[in-house]
Parts: sequence; C-alpha cells; structure tokens
Amino acid sequence: MERTLILDCNNKVGQEIRVCGWVQTRRDHGKIAFLDLMDRSGIIQVFCRGEDVKEIHPQDVICITGLVNSRPENLINSNLATGKIELHAKQIEVLVKAAELPFDMGGKDLDLQLPTLLDHRPLTLRHPKVKAIFKVQEVVIDAFRKALTEKDFIEFQAPTIVPAATEGGAEIFPVDYYQYKAYLGQSPQLYKQIMVGVFERVFTVGRAYRAEPSVTTRHLSEYISLDCEFGFIESWSEVPDLAEDVIKRIFSEVEKRCGRELELYGVGVPQIAGKLPRIKLTEAQQIIKTRTGREVIGEPDLSPEDEREITEWAKEKHGSELIIITHYPTSKRPFYTYPDPEDPEHTLSFDLIGRGVEWFTGGQRINDHQQLLESMKKKGVNPENFQLYLQAFQYGLPPEGGFAIGAERVTMHILGLSNIREASLFPRDMERVDVRLSTIKK
Amino acid sequence: MERTLILDCNNKVGQEIRVCGWVQTRRDHGKIAFLDLMDRSGIIQVFCRGEDVKEIHPQDVICITGLVNSRPENLINSNLATGKIELHAKQIEVLVKAAELPFDMGGKDLDLQLPTLLDHRPLTLRHPKVKAIFKVQEVVIDAFRKALTEKDFIEFQAPTIVPAATEGGAEIFPVDYYQYKAYLGQSPQLYKQIMVGVFERVFTVGRAYRAEPSVTTRHLSEYISLDCEFGFIESWSEVPDLAEDVIKRIFSEVEKRCGRELELYGVGVPQIAGKLPRIKLTEAQQIIKTRTGREVIGEPDLSPEDEREITEWAKEKHGSELIIITHYPTSKRPFYTYPDPEDPEHTLSFDLIGRGVEWFTGGQRINDHQQLLESMKKKGVNPENFQLYLQAFQYGLPPEGGFAIGAERVTMHILGLSNIREASLFPRDMERVDVRLSTIKK
Repeated sequence: MERTLILDCNNKVGQEIRVCGWVQTRRDHGKIAFLDLMDRSGIIQVFCRGEDVKEIHPQDVICITGLVNSRPENLINSNLATGKIELHAKQIEVLVKAAELPFDMGGKDLDLQLPTLLDHRPLTLRHPKVKAIFKVQEVVIDAFRKALTEKDFIEFQAPTIVPAATEGGAEIFPVDYYQYKAYLGQSPQLYKQIMVGVFERVFTVGRAYRAEPSVTTRHLSEYISLDCEFGFIESWSEVPDLAEDVIKRIFSEVEKRCGRELELYGVGVPQIAGKLPRIKLTEAQQIIKTRTGREVIGEPDLSPEDEREITEWAKEKHGSELIIITHYPTSKRPFYTYPDPEDPEHTLSFDLIGRGVEWFTGGQRINDHQQLLESMKKKGVNPENFQLYLQAFQYGLPPEGGFAIGAERVTMHILGLSNIREASLFPRDMERVDVRLSTIKK
Repeated sequence: MERTLILDCNNKVGQEIRVCGWVQTRRDHGKIAFLDLMDRSGIIQVFCRGEDVKEIHPQDVICITGLVNSRPENLINSNLATGKIELHAKQIEVLVKAAELPFDMGGKDLDLQLPTLLDHRPLTLRHPKVKAIFKVQEVVIDAFRKALTEKDFIEFQAPTIVPAATEGGAEIFPVDYYQYKAYLGQSPQLYKQIMVGVFERVFTVGRAYRAEPSVTTRHLSEYISLDCEFGFIESWSEVPDLAEDVIKRIFSEVEKRCGRELELYGVGVPQIAGKLPRIKLTEAQQIIKTRTGREVIGEPDLSPEDEREITEWAKEKHGSELIIITHYPTSKRPFYTYPDPEDPEHTLSFDLIGRGVEWFTGGQRINDHQQLLESMKKKGVNPENFQLYLQAFQYGLPPEGGFAIGAERVTMHILGLSNIREASLFPRDMERVDVRLSTIKK
C-alpha cells in the first residue's frame, strides 16, 4: 500500500492507510501500547496491541498499516496537528531497528548538557525542539533571499579559499594549498564588493571562518554569513534602510511560517513599532550616561552592558526591541569603511542591536581607488594582498554599501538560545569538529 | 532627479530622465559621440555632443540626465532591449573615473586567453557575455531549489571544515585548525545523509573541495555542489527519477528566464524527448561494442570516448541529448553505495551523461548500520573517522538515496563552454587563488 504522510491522515478518517516514520515514544498500558510515530509532516498517536509491538523501541524506523479513527471529544490533544485522530494499527513492518538510546528523547524538552547534545548530534537533531531551530534558520535564510530578490538583487556564490586575510587580524585558518599557503575567508566582503561592479545589487549565503582563539557563547569557527551589497546609493542611509527592510521581512516570514516553532520556545519575534530608532554612537553614549551615570562618553564602542542599556531605552521610549546605532569611530572599523565627510573620525557605518546584543553590522564603503589605498596604508594593510579586489575600484565602482547577517546569530536571538552552538547544525569551535578534537588520533 | 533604470526608459519616451551606470563603449562621429551606458537592467545608446564627453572613457561610472527619444524606424536595433529608443544627453555627471582598460571590452565577444580573463576577473566579469554565464548559473541553482522545495525538501547548511577525508583518497586540503589538523570537505555527502534522519528530504547548496593534483579543463579545487538526499524510498529507481525531474526543471527555468543569455552563446538547453533513456552499464557497453567494435565489455567505467558514443546512440535512437547509465561496479563506487541485492558486484547507482560527458552521479545508499560497517571495512575506510556519521545509522535511518550536481559543470555543459573555469566566478586551481600563486611572496 502506498505511504500516506502523517499530516494527511487528518483527511482519511475511516480509511485504512499506511504511514512510515520514526518511533518517538511508546507508552504501555497493560495489554495495549501507544506509539507516537513521526515523519517529515508531523506526529501521530498509534494504538497497538502490546504483543504486536513488543520489540519496537524509540527511533526504530517502521511502517504501520491501520485504520484512522476520530478521537472522542474528551481525548482530543490540541497541542498536536493530528490531535483529533488516532491510528489503530493492523500491521507493523520494521524497516530498520535502532540501537538503544543513550538518553530519553521522548520529553517535551531535551535536557542535556551542551557537550552531550553535540556528541550525539545525528540523534539530538531529531528532537522536535532541536529540529525547530533549523526550521527557523532556513526560514531566516529564505526570507533574506526573498527580500533581496524582490528588490532586484542577484545571488552569487563567493569562494571560501582566499589568498590573504580579508580584514587583517590573526584569526584566520591557514590551508595547505598544494605547495602554497592559502586561507579560509573571514567573510565574503571583498567578493561582494567586486560583484557590485558586475550586477550592481548582489547577495550571497556564504561561509565565513574565524579562528576565534577562545570558547565563548557567541562565536563559531565556521558560520553562515548572509551578505548583501549594492551600488548607486545616493545617500549612505539607504544601507541601514535596506537592513531594516530585510530584518523586518525576516521577522514577518518567521512569524508567518514558524508559529509552532516559536511556541515551542515560548517566544515571539522582536517587537518593532514602525521605523527602528536610529541614533549616533555619541548620542547613545549620552543617553546611557544620563540613565546610569556611567562615564561612557568617548569610548570607541558600546560594552555589553551599554548594549543592554540602550536597547532598554529603545524599548521604553520607542516600543522597539531593535535599535540602529550609527557613526562608529574610524579607528575601530575595517579599512573599507567610509569615513563621514563631515566628521572623518567617524564612519558611515552602523550596528543593529536587539534584545541587548549586537545582531549585525553594515555601512557605506570607500569606492574611490585612491582613497581606498590611503585607508589601507593608514590601517597597515598591504595592498599587495588585495590585487584582485583593488581592480574593481581601479575600473570604476559606484558609491555602494552593504551589510552581513550571521544566520546563526539571528536564529539564536529570535529563539532566545543561550549558546550560538545550539543554532548551528554541526558547530565548529576550538574544541570540536563534529567530535571532540582531543579524542582524535593525530 | 531620481534615477531611472535603463530598461524602464522604454516607457519614458518624450520625458526627461536620469540614468546611471557604466560606460560600455564610445563611438565618435565628428562632433557627436555615442555612448553605450549599462546598468543592472540593460544598455542604452546615448547621443552626446562630442565636447561634453571628451573625458569619458569605458567603465567610467556616470549619471546622465537627458531626453528619451524614439529612434526612426530604420535605426531600430532589434538586438537591444532598448533598441527602439535613444537618450539625448543634456547633463553628464561623473561619479567615478576608471583607469585605462588593459584590453577592449566593447566587442560582442571578449577574445582573451584564459589566464588574462582570470587575471582581470573584476573587469572581465562585467562583459555582457561573461556576466551571462553567472545569470545562467544562478537560475540553475534557483531551479534546483525550487524543484526540491516543491517536493517537500528542506534546505540545510552543511559545514565545510571536516575531521576526516569524506570519501577516502588523497585529494583533500588540510587546514591548520588551532593545534589540530582538520580538512576541507570533499562533499556534503555525510551531512546530507545525517539530515535525512532529521528532515527526511533535504538539499544543500554546498561547497566542496578537491585537491586535484593536475590542471584539467573540467576540475576545480573549490566548487558548488547542489546536493540532495531523501528517505523512505520504496525502490531505488526513485533516485534517478528525481534526478531526471530536477534536471528537466533546471532546463525549463533556464530556457524561460535566460533566453538572451542562451542566444549570446548560440545554444539551447539539451533536447529531451519524454523520459530519459536509462540503461545498465553492461547494456551500454554492449551497444558501444556493436556500434564501434571496441572491446569495452567488462570495463569498470565508460571512457570519454564511450561517453561520447553512448550519447550519440541516445540521440539517434531516443532523440535525447541526455542518458542515464546505471549499475556501476561496486568496486568503483564509494563505501556508502548500495549493492544491487540481485547482483552485489554492481551498485544501485547512476551517472547522468549528456552531450558526450558525465554531468553528475547519484544512487541509493547503504542504510543498515552493520552493512555499512562491513562495506567500510572492505574498502579500507576506518570507521573511527566517521563516528558522528555512523550514529545516524545506529539510531535508525530509512532506505534512502540522493545525488549531487556540480553547478559549474551543469552551467558549462548548458552553455557549451570549453573550460570549467569560465563557469566559476573566481576559480581556484593548482595555480590560482584569485591571483597566480607563483606571484605571491611566501
């Protein structure tokens, strides 16, 4: 008999059907047993004779032929998309037996320490609450693509092996590249700028690598960078304008398509009232000083404490859980950042801060070849390492800007996860590449 | 004045507008000059007074305010989307001056040797015929996504830093990963199989790396792998069935959305009459022997000559430029390939061959944990290096299969390019990462 998807059983009451999936849980009541069976569409409760399922355990892959029945009114489970029905098993076919599980997967939550969660990733990813994270993540990525495609942006594929450190710094992974040394790119930044010269408006769902030499809750060694860049801006503020459009679109898609996932985490997407508040760093520091008395004025950046304070202010004053802070000091931003012509010590750049932490960064870029060379010189960056990149400017690049969103970071902040590793399918860090590195024989 | 996109000028005849873009060519006729201006939407011919554009050169970034006029009937250029109009320049504003070009970019073709083409990639990518390749490539990728999303597949993001060689072999790049050795993944294969246990039907637009130790026209060191995998197959032939659906969808989208690009290359998408011919390797060899007399029977694979011959046959006999060859020998396929239960020396795998060359590969995978361990042992693959992967099978993975399409390879074969480097924005090979490696100081 052909397979029916579990969710489609809702329309098959009174019919005999066949479903296939993984056993999530079994509950024994004397001579009868209930299985929860899961497939890609959902979960269904299956009523079985105990003796028919003696050998059936969680994560076994099975197919069940049976009759779809309505549940009596008092047994309806409104938490389940198939909560009004139940399957009465007639025949059970075991496709694959699973080994005994190292921990219980049947609870609403999966209460495991992070190392255990990651040591058993192929299994723990199957838990509905863990799986939900990556449903949300794919909607985030899809919404990013949709928002930009509708505005005439073209997707491109950025390379990840690069000839030199993208943005300076030591946090870069060397690659043995034939008889040469190459590196893993710290971001698709340079390539997206080159691509502005080709398609004007571009984005990429790229890979980025940071040899972060410490274990923190918000850094990954490999992450997904949602990068976009566009030319012919008439004013620098078009860049944060676009960032605002994109993040709002991400929220609205997540809200529309991930209701159940948000519910599992007991969260909603961040609240925004109209346009996001947008203030300069110096204004933010003035507000923080007034509210807390802390002497933050003149600092080159916001501390984590400051970030929490300014989002608190944005929420109280503007009813917005997000705020855009602009005009960070030139000294603290990468060489390609555009200095404010009216105040060259500060840049036409921004951070988007939400729920107390930085979400992402963007700004206008220097598009004049000569000015770019000078900025590199000031920052101690060697133009020799950027030969290809510099050609884009040599041969004419319009005024342009862009931003980059870390997909894991946005997922983490939407769902309120406490560690970014939870928002990465197979997180890489100082201590782990799938398995704990210390356990690998060298 | 606000910017108008060049293509929209078609609806602005008689109006004064402002366009911005790159100068493609200038043609001087005594006191007047014609500029071809290009933006993301298209190209427009601009009529100027010679003295107004004395300093204007190709690739300069400019804005022109002027009047949109209809062209007289006899001057209509039907090769141009704006061929019925012309812009009469009133005011020209130079945004960025370009350096003198190292070669002429104004011709219909860009007749450069490959090294020159790649040495100046940010410039050469701007040529309409080069740019067209990447328009096609993005439609290929988008069509892959669409075809699968519509069939309930979920996209996921595969990691690229891996703890061990994915499929054996020496062609792998080592990464200095903190104080450990890690590698760049040869494909997302293992991760997509793990993800079948999570979402049942998955795909990824992944990165794959091969330390190919020779310079050929069809290998890249880094490429885009369009990978998909799905569980609960009832018969192995569902895998080539899906591959066929996907490739047909790719062709139909390219045909629909890239008419102009195909025209530039004077090609059409491959012809297919109904269902693709599908034969076993041994049958293919019998046909080749009958047609050519060559003693190919018993060979473990098709030679390039054989591939050409069998596609020739498919075209003559079935009117199809593509053919699926199945049942390659177990000895020549990776450890995860499913052996045919009726003939364990051959596998339930296939190659899709088109226009004389292999396009991509797929098949059913071994999903039984014990059988997989035995297959690894036979192939001399150490299970220790696949701890995480093996968990997916230990905890129950349904019968499943999938395939992987190289995005550059498909782009190359659709457009009839002679070297795969042309189908990669920034190709990496033994000799090049953006720039020629021999020119980089170590």
